[in-house]
Amino acid sequence: MIISPEVRKIIKRALDEDIGPGDLTTRALIEGDEKGSAYGLTKEEVTLAGLFVFREVFVCLDPQLKIDLFFKDGDTVPPGTEIGKVTGPLASILSAERTALNFLQRMSGIATLTKSFVQAVEGTGVRILDTRKTAPGLRILDKYAVRVGGGLNHRFALFDGILIKDNHLAAVGGIKEAVSRLKSHLPPSQRIEVEVKNLSDLSIALEAGVDIIMLDNMSIEDMTRAVEMANGRVKLEASGNVTLDRVRKIAETGVDFISIGCLTHSVKAADISLKIEVR
Amino acid sequence: MIISPEVRKIIKRALDEDIGPGDLTTRALIEGDEKGSAYGLTKEEVTLAGLFVFREVFVCLDPQLKIDLFFKDGDTVPPGTEIGKVTGPLASILSAERTALNFLQRMSGIATLTKSFVQAVEGTGVRILDTRKTAPGLRILDKYAVRVGGGLNHRFALFDGILIKDNHLAAVGGIKEAVSRLKSHLPPSQRIEVEVKNLSDLSIALEAGVDIIMLDNMSIEDMTRAVEMANGRVKLEASGNVTLDRVRKIAETGVDFISIGCLTHSVKAADISLKIEVR
Amino acid sequence: MIISPEVRKIIKRALDEDIGPGDLTTRALIEGDEKGSAYGLTKEEVTLAGLFVFREVFVCLDPQLKIDLFFKDGDTVPPGTEIGKVTGPLASILSAERTALNFLQRMSGIATLTKSFVQAVEGTGVRILDTRKTAPGLRILDKYAVRVGGGLNHRFALFDGILIKDNHLAAVGGIKEAVSRLKSHLPPSQRIEVEVKNLSDLSIALEAGVDIIMLDNMSIEDMTRAVEMANGRVKLEASGNVTLDRVRKIAETGVDFISIGCLTHSVKAADISLKIEVR
Amino acid sequence: MIISPEVRKIIKRALDEDIGPGDLTTRALIEGDEKGSAYGLTKEEVTLAGLFVFREVFVCLDPQLKIDLFFKDGDTVPPGTEIGKVTGPLASILSAERTALNFLQRMSGIATLTKSFVQAVEGTGVRILDTRKTAPGLRILDKYAVRVGGGLNHRFALFDGILIKDNHLAAVGGIKEAVSRLKSHLPPSQRIEVEVKNLSDLSIALEAGVDIIMLDNMSIEDMTRAVEMANGRVKLEASGNVTLDRVRKIAETGVDFISIGCLTHSVKAADISLKIEVR
Amino acid sequence: MIISPEVRKIIKRALDEDIGPGDLTTRALIEGDEKGSAYGLTKEEVTLAGLFVFREVFVCLDPQLKIDLFFKDGDTVPPGTEIGKVTGPLASILSAERTALNFLQRMSGIATLTKSFVQAVEGTGVRILDTRKTAPGLRILDKYAVRVGGGLNHRFALFDGILIKDNHLAAVGGIKEAVSRLKSHLPPSQRIEVEVKNLSDLSIALEAGVDIIMLDNMSIEDMTRAVEMANGRVKLEASGNVTLDRVRKIAETGVDFISIGCLTHSVKAADISLKIEVR
Amino acid sequence: MIISPEVRKIIKRALDEDIGPGDLTTRALIEGDEKGSAYGLTKEEVTLAGLFVFREVFVCLDPQLKIDLFFKDGDTVPPGTEIGKVTGPLASILSAERTALNFLQRMSGIATLTKSFVQAVEGTGVRILDTRKTAPGLRILDKYAVRVGGGLNHRFALFDGILIKDNHLAAVGGIKEAVSRLKSHLPPSQRIEVEVKNLSDLSIALEAGVDIIMLDNMSIEDMTRAVEMANGRVKLEASGNVTLDRVRKIAETGVDFISIGCLTHSVKAADISLKIEVR
Repeated sequence: MIISPEVRKIIKRALDEDIGPGDLTTRALIEGDEKGSAYGLTKEEVTLAGLFVFREVFVCLDPQLKIDLFFKDGDTVPPGTEIGKVTGPLASILSAERTALNFLQRMSGIATLTKSFVQAVEGTGVRILDTRKTAPGLRILDKYAVRVGGGLNHRFALFDGILIKDNHLAAVGGIKEAVSRLKSHLPPSQRIEVEVKNLSDLSIALEAGVDIIMLDNMSIEDMTRAVEMANGRVKLEASGNVTLDRVRKIAETGVDFISIGCLTHSVKAADISLKIEVR
Repeated sequence: MIISPEVRKIIKRALDEDIGPGDLTTRALIEGDEKGSAYGLTKEEVTLAGLFVFREVFVCLDPQLKIDLFFKDGDTVPPGTEIGKVTGPLASILSAERTALNFLQRMSGIATLTKSFVQAVEGTGVRILDTRKTAPGLRILDKYAVRVGGGLNHRFALFDGILIKDNHLAAVGGIKEAVSRLKSHLPPSQRIEVEVKNLSDLSIALEAGVDIIMLDNMSIEDMTRAVEMANGRVKLEASGNVTLDRVRKIAETGVDFISIGCLTHSVKAADISLKIEVR
Repeated sequence: MIISPEVRKIIKRALDEDIGPGDLTTRALIEGDEKGSAYGLTKEEVTLAGLFVFREVFVCLDPQLKIDLFFKDGDTVPPGTEIGKVTGPLASILSAERTALNFLQRMSGIATLTKSFVQAVEGTGVRILDTRKTAPGLRILDKYAVRVGGGLNHRFALFDGILIKDNHLAAVGGIKEAVSRLKSHLPPSQRIEVEVKNLSDLSIALEAGVDIIMLDNMSIEDMTRAVEMANGRVKLEASGNVTLDRVRKIAETGVDFISIGCLTHSVKAADISLKIEVR
Repeated sequence: MIISPEVRKIIKRALDEDIGPGDLTTRALIEGDEKGSAYGLTKEEVTLAGLFVFREVFVCLDPQLKIDLFFKDGDTVPPGTEIGKVTGPLASILSAERTALNFLQRMSGIATLTKSFVQAVEGTGVRILDTRKTAPGLRILDKYAVRVGGGLNHRFALFDGILIKDNHLAAVGGIKEAVSRLKSHLPPSQRIEVEVKNLSDLSIALEAGVDIIMLDNMSIEDMTRAVEMANGRVKLEASGNVTLDRVRKIAETGVDFISIGCLTHSVKAADISLKIEVR
Repeated sequence: MIISPEVRKIIKRALDEDIGPGDLTTRALIEGDEKGSAYGLTKEEVTLAGLFVFREVFVCLDPQLKIDLFFKDGDTVPPGTEIGKVTGPLASILSAERTALNFLQRMSGIATLTKSFVQAVEGTGVRILDTRKTAPGLRILDKYAVRVGGGLNHRFALFDGILIKDNHLAAVGGIKEAVSRLKSHLPPSQRIEVEVKNLSDLSIALEAGVDIIMLDNMSIEDMTRAVEMANGRVKLEASGNVTLDRVRKIAETGVDFISIGCLTHSVKAADISLKIEVR
Repeated sequence: MIISPEVRKIIKRALDEDIGPGDLTTRALIEGDEKGSAYGLTKEEVTLAGLFVFREVFVCLDPQLKIDLFFKDGDTVPPGTEIGKVTGPLASILSAERTALNFLQRMSGIATLTKSFVQAVEGTGVRILDTRKTAPGLRILDKYAVRVGGGLNHRFALFDGILIKDNHLAAVGGIKEAVSRLKSHLPPSQRIEVEVKNLSDLSIALEAGVDIIMLDNMSIEDMTRAVEMANGRVKLEASGNVTLDRVRKIAETGVDFISIGCLTHSVKAADISLKIEVR
């Protein structure tokens, strides 16, 4: 992942948030020119994501810091693994530590969870998708972590994909009307996706001529029937109430995609810490 | 909570992130001047936090939107509760929906979890604290939500509290040396807190003369003994491996504070949605 | 068009750029509390675009200013038309004048040119598309103006549409390889478009299975042949060397879209001025 | 030109605008560590301007990219000229391409047009000036390009020059009153310029004691007469309806400056492209 | 003074700087909906400047606050004067207090000092000028306060005035060479000013043909002689070592301007406080 | 001091403020590639502070500039001392000069004044404190300079320390009520400080149980009595009307801290200049 100007802004904001006018503890304890080193250490099995962000946090605070990474994003490592080493001004290492870890732990948490869903549907050909239910301001990193975990990104935002949801249908009056309004404004790069809640809406959507249909909160039986009805004419995306226990069953109905909000809205931080090397 | 300039910036960034150059779906489906309304709806029991942010997201996108809130932050409501109503340009409601919910769901998730910990220690006099393990860029909201849930904020960041952690001790060489270095730089408004991993370090810390001691990952037995050793001379904060199952036992050792990282680093979004009223 | 936070930032930057530390002339000439009014006046036939931006510039500088708009975006008006009226503190009107006009003139220039292309292909069913060749920092407004003129937006940016261009093909080695690499990463909301320079590449692209094919700089004859070869299986987009003289001929080949860079990269500002009403 | 912090912000915004959450096509097609090179190529005769911006765009996105420039700003080169070479990570070259070209094409378009006006008045001693009719947010670059083309910058903005325009006169009541109000507030570094529409206003302006007089939309005959009336006491600036056909005639009236809005408000992008070198 | 977008940004930054994640004291002490009022009170004689900024700070933090101002910028008031009243949410008043006062005290301090210099030269026709020696980031306010105190602004910055200083001369090789280089690049709105250190340099500058000459750190005798030498052909500006004791003597030499760095680089804050009205 | 992202933003803003669209004088006088050097020179005895900011200003404008510093922050040097040398593109040196000096002069002015207060109380054990009366937007630098001068920072802002001031007491009703409200919200890292105006309030504060008591504007006699009353149970901070003449007397009363607003609100810029080396 290129550290784009956008990602650099996110990193700078996070450092400002945590350091602001200064690190009271470190400033008092450490001389400015003291050098040292520290390594990142996993405390559980983790699929790593965000190593480049982890590095950039340190470099952004202090360009004198050098970071060696021993793994790359997407690697799954056991507990107790040294994942990288930071060397340079000790005060800078200590001041950047928490911010660097907050990114790495969140992103690795997302990748690790995503990977478990991806593995649960292995062999079915189904792709795991994320949603727009991300932490405000961090979507670019949240969605990157989903890709690292083997997931596929659904649209990034409202500006890069068309999805007619229940609230649009309520506002417009129905699938047929909505699809017809959309077609004359359709950017050529975009497919049309519509959300349906039951099989009779599915019929209408199939007739209206869309590219993808989201099956919202349907039973396994209904999804199975939906796959038969679609018969390959459109892509089908299952959504709602997707758990690790249930995801394979959903995949086996024959849908093309399964989208999962909790990948990014209910992240469990990966347990990774930073250890200063005692000299 | 006052919607400060800082919070407004967070909201603007989140709206930009999700809407950017425009909401493709809504732009095509809804005429600019069509009016409508929608209400927020809980789908599980939730301690609400962030209602003012929820409101500000809509107003920030479109000052013509009116938002009536039926509850206030800190209220715990059952599933199926209408929490507020948004009225005005329909396109604006639809475009702001996800961003408004992303804030409200995260913040209410934090408040709800915090409240369950607070209730678990009720009557013991122990206060539940948060940590700096927050989503980068959202700390001001994460920590507010902890307060809404009945928790107390630990230091906000590196700039407003002194906490000598294991890495500082590794860098400096020991508790005694660290505390002595700190004392001549101590801002008068700040207390000194030091992290200890065992009872012998506790003795050293007690002797060095600090205000608060964090007991990191200690057993219930050791914490009980720590309380005796401290004997009211310093405040004690338990930290590490704090679960809902274990928190009351920790509280009953007699410590003053229990700090819990997962309140903010492993948030489970509260299940709240927005429903357009069909006309 | 909703004045989104993003558009407000563009407007603020433009006002800062032109006013910065202060309007030397107006500050010296006009008392702070003097009131007055001014109206916008077209000096040629114009398809108006950006009236809401025009209004917001004044309000952003001075919320006391009131702006009445006599037309709406998309209206085509003859020379000499009063398009709106600004009333309030005279100093603010004078200071905001140039910035407000710079937006309105550029945006109306784009809409007017777009409309002439749209009219030239009327009845053929072909849609006129824009490109990413916009003024840096103003794309959201440039592309909005294209829509106002009756054009359709191609992808907004690199993040919301897939287009394999000649440089990608040079880098990857060929259409077949490129399409195959893309398919496993394809976000479900996106179509694949590929650029071809001749009919033999068209054959390969048709076989590779893409959604849209851009015919780059082809002769009318080749485009006609391309339409036959595609035979409705994919959408075709003509691109390169599109002039008002030639656009209808291109449209009559049967392509679906014609994309035109000069709509936004070679804008001729519409001639609109602001006149203070002498009291 | 120094790449000032201000210019860097413009470049970052442009990259964000085009890349935002990521380049869908390149991300899928190119491995992160693949290297390559590309060269810029003119497709028509161009006076180059903005080569340093072109370079900075690439470096800003990816500091690993190396850019060799074969020309310097102000050089006029024939079609088919290789103007510079970019080497490094292929994905970064592809992602930055459009943004880099958008700057270079606009700026070179301005320089090229400016140069044609400058050449048209060669030998008359007249200087070609720009105006404040620039693309919002890009004035610093637009005006730089005018200088590269041999033009002279009029005031940059409202804060660095005093120009009493028709609307000021309408507001204040007349030239005499306006000049008298200004004189007591006149910053010592500033001259006073006033716009006049006819010869009788010219007389009043000459009497009021200003430094420069702008002759707005006057006929060649009136401008000739104006030069006689001014008789060297003030500088004269011709403005309005200045075309390449007419500019020399205006220059030969003896005015000192000719200001031309279309240099920046009706830019025709220079035709320059980027070609990946096939390996 | 219009509260421009630029000034609003300065105010927002200052509020963020002081309030950041929250006002610990006020948050704990005051209920969110408690109302109250406070008035500004001078503790010494002050020439007021920045009342509009004072107001905007409160409104920017909390739009519910109402501010009544009893004076206007430029008024000189005795100690013990109530200058304005703030009414509304008590917590917001308390949180904004220091930021509002920091602006008002600095700006009024500048205006008060400027006024004392202006009064010291009253009747001589000399104008008091400021310099670019302002607090970084606050120049727009510092220079405004100088105007309020009756001073005239020298150039705002490097971009709006030409001043050849000793370091330019050292770099270029001499006054003659510098002026000649400048003349072909001279923006029509700008005068040329040059700094001289002695009378022989003055002769050279007079010959080179500049508009203003700055007499740097000259004795009263030399300045008197300089006025004779210039004989009205150029404007003269005295600079360096200007104190209240000495300023009238300098003015009486016949120079046109006296520029004074300490007006803005060595500000003494005006003594103004805010008093909450006890209910 | 680490040049944090926050400090870099302050520097960028200051450069933008002074250079904005360009340095008219330098641009016309100096060729872009001319090289040169300059050294900083003190003109009075100065305690240096901000050398790293001085360096960063040059580097931020032009990364090709090299800066050698001959001293470090906190060094006190006599008039006529060369403090550092800047080498590289001459135009960049000239354009950055004023901004670099404005920071260095203000910060060194603060450090120098602070040091004189610190020396005046030498041997008494009293620590000199600053306040929040800083230049808006520059607090991080102002407070750093106080530390360089040997002072101790009071709380940075409203977010990192609790101080119950007269206005809080007026709002809440009294010390006892205020302290009691605070205690249940007290972040564990914070001490409580309360301001008292007389000895009877001191008694109440001592009883209420706070950590620090600020003695506001008390006479030497009352402060002496206060020290006896406190008898070591709390820290005492003297505040108000502290001059160099009076500070030692205050210190000898036995208070622990003396806070002084003028350290940062009434700064006298240190006299330091930059001299270009004539080649």
